[in-house]
Amino acid sequence: MAKTLSSTGENATIALFSHAFAAGNASHPDVIAGPGDDCAILASPDPKTVLLHKTDAIIEGVHFYKGERPGRVGHKALARALSDIAAMGGTPTTALVTTILPPDTSTSYARALAAGLARTADEYGVAIAGGETAAPHPDAPALIISIALLGTAPAHQCIRRSGGLPGDLLFVTGKLGGSLPSHRHLTFSPRLAEGRFLASQGATSMMDLSDGLAADLPRLSSASNCSATIDPAALPRHRNCTTHQAATDGEDYELLLTLPPKLAPTTQRAFAKKFPTLPLTAIGKLTQKNSIIPGLPPGGWDHFSTITK
Amino acid sequence: MAKTLSSTGENATIALFSHAFAAGNASHPDVIAGPGDDCAILASPDPKTVLLHKTDAIIEGVHFYKGERPGRVGHKALARALSDIAAMGGTPTTALVTTILPPDTSTSYARALAAGLARTADEYGVAIAGGETAAPHPDAPALIISIALLGTAPAHQCIRRSGGLPGDLLFVTGKLGGSLPSHRHLTFSPRLAEGRFLASQGATSMMDLSDGLAADLPRLSSASNCSATIDPAALPRHRNCTTHQAATDGEDYELLLTLPPKLAPTTQRAFAKKFPTLPLTAIGKLTQKNSIIPGLPPGGWDHFSTITK
Repeated sequence: MAKTLSSTGENATIALFSHAFAAGNASHPDVIAGPGDDCAILASPDPKTVLLHKTDAIIEGVHFYKGERPGRVGHKALARALSDIAAMGGTPTTALVTTILPPDTSTSYARALAAGLARTADEYGVAIAGGETAAPHPDAPALIISIALLGTAPAHQCIRRSGGLPGDLLFVTGKLGGSLPSHRHLTFSPRLAEGRFLASQGATSMMDLSDGLAADLPRLSSASNCSATIDPAALPRHRNCTTHQAATDGEDYELLLTLPPKLAPTTQRAFAKKFPTLPLTAIGKLTQKNSIIPGLPPGGWDHFSTITK
Repeated sequence: MAKTLSSTGENATIALFSHAFAAGNASHPDVIAGPGDDCAILASPDPKTVLLHKTDAIIEGVHFYKGERPGRVGHKALARALSDIAAMGGTPTTALVTTILPPDTSTSYARALAAGLARTADEYGVAIAGGETAAPHPDAPALIISIALLGTAPAHQCIRRSGGLPGDLLFVTGKLGGSLPSHRHLTFSPRLAEGRFLASQGATSMMDLSDGLAADLPRLSSASNCSATIDPAALPRHRNCTTHQAATDGEDYELLLTLPPKLAPTTQRAFAKKFPTLPLTAIGKLTQKNSIIPGLPPGGWDHFSTITK
């Protein structure tokens, strides 16, 4: 039987594409960092800044559902991409929106969706400078919204997943777990101001938590060529969530980051002063590379394998 | 009954989204030109250049079909966006690729698709700096590839749809019609060098022909606040195509442009010398604004209304 993507899994599928594009990235003068981080990092004509480019799609029946309010769906579509700009310590600038709309979509739904996108864009200083509307395959009429977002970051404060060192302390913003039943996955605030502040304070690595800590932390630690230890009891949990849910539910859109132990106490105090309602919690640390992460349940959300289970 | 997008049509759907985003675009310092052209035109830190941003998606069963070679599908996905950069007189730089892949896609198909994308990227000097792979709605398993492409253009030679004047002559590159049965829609060459050359020669307006001349010319003439007359007998047709097919088949990916009558003869001679195998054909001219375009059959490809017929 031919091998399929569901047997290969999401990480291997991403690797397959990244591998095909690797040579082109290595030789292109504009590419500072290609696949493997929250955003692509590109050269800007201004050497003091870098350009950030991110695409993210949400799919009806996967990331949102028919009965959910279209204004919130529009918010989620854009806020997910904003969260990736936040994870680099960046500032978003302009976006393009691709909507694949079944022809039986009501114009009032489309209008509310567009208004939700416009409201969130406005809130974070982003202009939606165009995009595309297309109709889906007639037999596959799922609504899809894909965002292509640009942003900038100071060249010396653009934080990657790969900058962590053994001994750096692991932190998360906010609380984890229960995003889907509470509808937070539709209403969350991307941590843009928080990401820029943490970048300015000396965060060594950062990413946003979209697939859940159990799936995302191994991506950060592996990009930093480290392993990690977690104190499960320290995970900041939303009300009624177990530690397991906090680690695996996904769709938290909080920041996961590392700080050198020397900087951590000052940064925590400064963060608490600047963002008094948002916790910044130490949950563990990076360690010398080995093969397992004590304290974390294995796995997390895998787009290709879970869908077929 | 609630109004739906199929009754509203494609142009009204695009207008609905553009309208929602208009205020945000008008007030944002980075937006030079928002929705309504082949690409968004954005400010660059280098005042002599502008940044171009384009997204374009191809959908299985709409823009390509299951039996078609995945390498060609990958080519088409990227080449369509390259064609839009060409239509501004620009040069593409980096892209992100979003692939929505049914879990039963074979890894060999995915690998060939990625290789097709990489080959075309390499041919036109583009790096694919990342993107996303996602799984579709289980009940709507159509393969979708969406490209977010960046490029640059000289600020004084970035050609919009809106620059044409009454009296300017209309030209098309190449030949029109029959793109689907001949498979040219999967193998066409985006007219990047040609677009830059025509921009440098003083083209006043330009766009690429994706939906067919009958649908696209009214977009160019209306953006230029003009009407247009066409000589149907002058349309450069592919072998075995009628004039009607040349005007309405779509997926030509040739350039439609205007030149002031004074510049036209010199530009035609220079173009013939530089691109000896590609015709540049005068097909009509822009006129003072009125309501009909003599010589053109009404309509063309409409994504929302044709899909339900």
